[in-house]
Amino acid sequence: MTSPSEDLVTRTRAFVESEVLPLEDAFDGDVAAAGGDRLRVDLQKLARAAGVFAPHAPEEFGGLGLGMVERAPVFEAAGRALFGPMALNINAPDEGNLHLLDQVASGDQRARYLAPLARGEQRSAFAMTEPPPGAGSDPGALLTVARRAGSGWLVTGQKKFITGADGAGFYIVMARTPGGATMFLVPADRPGISITRHVPTMDRSMVGGHCELSFTDVEVGDEDVLGAVDEGFRYAQVRLGPARLTHVMRWLGAAQRAHEAAVSYVSTRSAFGAPLARQGMVELMIADNEIDLAATRSLLLTACRVLDAGGAGREETSLAKVFGAEALHRVADRAMQMCGGAGVSADLPVARIARELRPFRIYDGPSEVHRMSLARRAVRRYGASA
Amino acid sequence: MTSPSEDLVTRTRAFVESEVLPLEDAFDGDVAAAGGDRLRVDLQKLARAAGVFAPHAPEEFGGLGLGMVERAPVFEAAGRALFGPMALNINAPDEGNLHLLDQVASGDQRARYLAPLARGEQRSAFAMTEPPPGAGSDPGALLTVARRAGSGWLVTGQKKFITGADGAGFYIVMARTPGGATMFLVPADRPGISITRHVPTMDRSMVGGHCELSFTDVEVGDEDVLGAVDEGFRYAQVRLGPARLTHVMRWLGAAQRAHEAAVSYVSTRSAFGAPLARQGMVELMIADNEIDLAATRSLLLTACRVLDAGGAGREETSLAKVFGAEALHRVADRAMQMCGGAGVSADLPVARIARELRPFRIYDGPSEVHRMSLARRAVRRYGASA
Amino acid sequence: MTSPSEDLVTRTRAFVESEVLPLEDAFDGDVAAAGGDRLRVDLQKLARAAGVFAPHAPEEFGGLGLGMVERAPVFEAAGRALFGPMALNINAPDEGNLHLLDQVASGDQRARYLAPLARGEQRSAFAMTEPPPGAGSDPGALLTVARRAGSGWLVTGQKKFITGADGAGFYIVMARTPGGATMFLVPADRPGISITRHVPTMDRSMVGGHCELSFTDVEVGDEDVLGAVDEGFRYAQVRLGPARLTHVMRWLGAAQRAHEAAVSYVSTRSAFGAPLARQGMVELMIADNEIDLAATRSLLLTACRVLDAGGAGREETSLAKVFGAEALHRVADRAMQMCGGAGVSADLPVARIARELRPFRIYDGPSEVHRMSLARRAVRRYGASA
Amino acid sequence: MTSPSEDLVTRTRAFVESEVLPLEDAFDGDVAAAGGDRLRVDLQKLARAAGVFAPHAPEEFGGLGLGMVERAPVFEAAGRALFGPMALNINAPDEGNLHLLDQVASGDQRARYLAPLARGEQRSAFAMTEPPPGAGSDPGALLTVARRAGSGWLVTGQKKFITGADGAGFYIVMARTPGGATMFLVPADRPGISITRHVPTMDRSMVGGHCELSFTDVEVGDEDVLGAVDEGFRYAQVRLGPARLTHVMRWLGAAQRAHEAAVSYVSTRSAFGAPLARQGMVELMIADNEIDLAATRSLLLTACRVLDAGGAGREETSLAKVFGAEALHRVADRAMQMCGGAGVSADLPVARIARELRPFRIYDGPSEVHRMSLARRAVRRYGASA
Repeated sequence: MTSPSEDLVTRTRAFVESEVLPLEDAFDGDVAAAGGDRLRVDLQKLARAAGVFAPHAPEEFGGLGLGMVERAPVFEAAGRALFGPMALNINAPDEGNLHLLDQVASGDQRARYLAPLARGEQRSAFAMTEPPPGAGSDPGALLTVARRAGSGWLVTGQKKFITGADGAGFYIVMARTPGGATMFLVPADRPGISITRHVPTMDRSMVGGHCELSFTDVEVGDEDVLGAVDEGFRYAQVRLGPARLTHVMRWLGAAQRAHEAAVSYVSTRSAFGAPLARQGMVELMIADNEIDLAATRSLLLTACRVLDAGGAGREETSLAKVFGAEALHRVADRAMQMCGGAGVSADLPVARIARELRPFRIYDGPSEVHRMSLARRAVRRYGASA
Repeated sequence: MTSPSEDLVTRTRAFVESEVLPLEDAFDGDVAAAGGDRLRVDLQKLARAAGVFAPHAPEEFGGLGLGMVERAPVFEAAGRALFGPMALNINAPDEGNLHLLDQVASGDQRARYLAPLARGEQRSAFAMTEPPPGAGSDPGALLTVARRAGSGWLVTGQKKFITGADGAGFYIVMARTPGGATMFLVPADRPGISITRHVPTMDRSMVGGHCELSFTDVEVGDEDVLGAVDEGFRYAQVRLGPARLTHVMRWLGAAQRAHEAAVSYVSTRSAFGAPLARQGMVELMIADNEIDLAATRSLLLTACRVLDAGGAGREETSLAKVFGAEALHRVADRAMQMCGGAGVSADLPVARIARELRPFRIYDGPSEVHRMSLARRAVRRYGASA
Repeated sequence: MTSPSEDLVTRTRAFVESEVLPLEDAFDGDVAAAGGDRLRVDLQKLARAAGVFAPHAPEEFGGLGLGMVERAPVFEAAGRALFGPMALNINAPDEGNLHLLDQVASGDQRARYLAPLARGEQRSAFAMTEPPPGAGSDPGALLTVARRAGSGWLVTGQKKFITGADGAGFYIVMARTPGGATMFLVPADRPGISITRHVPTMDRSMVGGHCELSFTDVEVGDEDVLGAVDEGFRYAQVRLGPARLTHVMRWLGAAQRAHEAAVSYVSTRSAFGAPLARQGMVELMIADNEIDLAATRSLLLTACRVLDAGGAGREETSLAKVFGAEALHRVADRAMQMCGGAGVSADLPVARIARELRPFRIYDGPSEVHRMSLARRAVRRYGASA
Repeated sequence: MTSPSEDLVTRTRAFVESEVLPLEDAFDGDVAAAGGDRLRVDLQKLARAAGVFAPHAPEEFGGLGLGMVERAPVFEAAGRALFGPMALNINAPDEGNLHLLDQVASGDQRARYLAPLARGEQRSAFAMTEPPPGAGSDPGALLTVARRAGSGWLVTGQKKFITGADGAGFYIVMARTPGGATMFLVPADRPGISITRHVPTMDRSMVGGHCELSFTDVEVGDEDVLGAVDEGFRYAQVRLGPARLTHVMRWLGAAQRAHEAAVSYVSTRSAFGAPLARQGMVELMIADNEIDLAATRSLLLTACRVLDAGGAGREETSLAKVFGAEALHRVADRAMQMCGGAGVSADLPVARIARELRPFRIYDGPSEVHRMSLARRAVRRYGASA
């Protein structure tokens, strides 16, 4: 007997295979070329009809309220298509924002921001990262400022690499306040905000792009403060833990698909008198992919269990993120190599998956920052004075 | 509240720390120099007194009958000392042989072989591997033969790398029989058996060494057949699945200790004006160790769960073995590097742990054979004809 | 005192910096977007004016006739810009074709094909690779056939990944003949030839793309045979040895530029209170880049010396190619990582250089094929029967 | 026609093969077990008779005065046997000390120290490294002190990892003096010196071991100052550049031998129905060894050329050392893996070569320190302010 969750995985996978993959293939994973927000709306309608929409959302918004362990295989199934998570409304940054709002938002904020977000009626963006010398891999360098002004605040600063910003309905903006940092909920059409540029990044599958934003004396009220004033850095961690893991889940699906495409490819080709799939150097790449995928999945589930049990899982999410980001890109890179010329073309999905995966070693904390933090924890634990 | 199993981990670790580590350090992990079988008997007496002896053994023999998931942290705690598993009677090959006998042995065989093995009254060896061109990484090349002779069998052949053979009470001998391969239980003093050589391997912590054995018309009766005739290859898998995982458990303990020793070392040293433990290249090694250890542990537990649920876990045990063998040696190697000159000396445990760990990439299936088998499974699953 | 060759390097570098790099940056290395063949003609005119055009060409065509060792730094200087080699007329496949024609072509063929090629009046393509199951990484699988027909030949077959085919003036076509394989010089407008598709590869800097070609009973005369009938595979080696090395030279320039861009970037940024360029994990990436670049350069020059001394250098060119292709991509990948978000955008040249470099691990012999050939040589040298 | 130098390589290799390798094999590379200094004297006599003794020594001492490029293949041939460099009197630390004395020593010092050293009549040691917190990978932390006392000096301090100290005739001692550091030539029997311990390192092939030394008010005269007072750090560089390269030369020979032994081994074994030497994963290891050996050799010769041309070659020697130390250990490690069980035993030379090679990633500057220095040079060259 299949559990409800296994059934959801099966249905998600079937939906993605039939409705989403053909579009990804046709447009080489370029979401803007494929229709952008219009495509998103169309696909979400289909996902709703197929009963696979928003499996992570709280039940009050029609979601299934799946825990982290349960959502892992569902998100992975969705991630097999680059546009799959968008179709299910479980894509970054919306998915992480939904989680954050569900944890922290006031009643009014739930109605005004969370509900339409969960239903796919609007998108959101998370405006934390800044151009140098502001907050990048080191959030402590935050330069955007919120000044008290009458009964509210005036937000001023520059943001960069704000995924999904173009076309979003609202932003969660991180700004420096007297006692730390604070998050503000800001409708995108609020005066003083402008999208100054799309950063021309190598990846192309994220609707709304990665934008540079300018905030000039943008008025926000106290009712727009998300949670408590000065608690922004803490909330960022609330958001980041699960957001890192759901990234790993989604990319696992993409890397798994690249791997399967490559294994399928080499199983039909021969060279030097023997099938490619039986040649040792190819077997090595297949096996190393299996190992990297399995190890990522194991580390992911270990971290999910900690989060489901109420832990913060700072260390476990770092481990899963840093290992996963590197391992999954290795998988896609080996898949390219296995497929030869076809592997570096758009005729197979592997090159595009490698292209989309590469930045994951940088965003949500570059590998180097996670390693620094893992090392410092180890020194506290095992250092001579421990 | 601590569970009984957590308590056992704590006590095992304390026992190993106080009773076993000092001896390992004094003799640089050379078990023969430290006393060989005499040391084993002494340490097992202490382990029994400390209530940590044979936690894996069936309850009828005074063991705790722990499942795979439960034994993982206990074996890891024991493995922190190279002589620790011997002290608890959970070392290779005895531990795997005990498991095999418990699954397959007849009532008489349980009394005659399994009981004294479980109680540490005698050691055993598993005589499968042969010198080239016989059974090595490819068991199918088996050359040792058992011929029918009257009411019994005559076993003839050469064996090599038989761990623990010198001083063992009995051997489990794999020999070719008309319909396949059969396992025989053979007392070590049976006429026709000789230990022709200790292979001078780089590791030194296994009591009884790695021996070459010669069998010449050794008489064995039908009552000495382990399980059924011709089922030897199948039983080898019964033994190997868990045996690979318990290897990983024990070596995890050793690698974890090397890592802790290195982190402790760098936390007390400075160079070029900064503490070593805060220098990026050292932090990188610390973090990579944390990642390798965590990924090994995650893959191990994933496989243990499959076995505890009754699965064969061929793929999961391969994944854990091949990843673990390579990752744990990387950990020990980085630990050496972090400690500089001290790292390649016997003043710290790291060089000796690296030395003992290296062969694990070869025994119980070299990495290359596991990869070949993982690749072929993947091709069956994802190949074009799948 | 600077040698003429050092002076040429300096001038090449200055020319590329001022005339070529701005165009590459403006179009993110997309040669079609930047103007394609029109851009080529314009840049070659400028290169001629700057006195840096065709430094490799025989002196009779106005070139400098540089040997392999001498051309290495010149080609590297040109390779700093993705369009640089095109500007100097030293790009693949023209450069390799020029070399081949210079070695093998008859007097008439020199006038008709080599001279305009050397002067940049027309481009060429090398039509060897075929779609599966034809000649790919294994040239022996050649399926295109040249049948005797009257006083000439009829060539029929499919070709794939033919770089620069669209817009080329002529093709060197490899076809099976009764006693082996033969190379034919075929004007691109000969009846029976069609360009059926541009393979949508990830790289974008090669003018004329990577095409699929169809040859149907294309008439070629005996005067179109390049060299001798049935000697095609041997000529392919004549072409490939130096062609692999000049690839390494050009990509060295690109990787070196990516490295310099990254070092410059990290020298201006700080995080966690310290300049990025002084953080150990960044220093590690910088140093590993220096090591990979230096080792590539050393292996390249070792091979160039062998060729300049008249050797075939099969082994040395393989070593330089396989190491270089992998090492230089590592360099570009680390450069991306060092630059964080900017590294995966078109704001810096590093992502585009990584994109262009990746296929080099596949073309001109995938790494796996070179390794197979290196291994077999070693076995012949050191195997037990050697 | 063979050049004199090629002839020397041939003869060196033949000498090592017939006279030295059998002894290494018999004692698993343990020089103390094989006879220590007595063995050295015997082998050097044989080397003299064979005309291969001290090829690097100045001609006035009967050497051949070979330059760096010329000595590379000779030292490599000697390094094929772990005791080979000792037999030719070209082992560390004597070989580096000879070079340093030849550059810096006064006439009297040449007669008293350099001449007997060149003739193999006594050994020497280079006493720079200290126990923490003294001079280790960071020479600037030097704690040993030379105080002015009457017409001479009193040297006091602790030294560690002083290779060859036990049995050496004299030490070159680095000590802090008012204006920097100074080198002193000190006979080993001078009062106040004691060898307090042999550090139990994993390697065993260096005669005289790696010792801890204690200097207590050891009297040295002005005539014992090597070169000028306060110039010690500069001389250390004079010594280290070539010494690093000759290390690489010698270890190249050892790694090359491990590689050949492994290729020979796999060429005689089969598994799973095919010769090991034709299985892809084995071919990969063979090819990667060929690549690592060739790249090490290329980087080595590049650096040798710089030194022969009078350059300091700080960067080139670092590149060759750091790459070589890591690549050659990879070669030995792969050789072990290729040979399976035999590979981790003393039945083949590969395990012992891996054991001897491992510390080379630490001594003469750990890989991390070389990388730091390479990175800082690159930042000075390419950083934004460059």
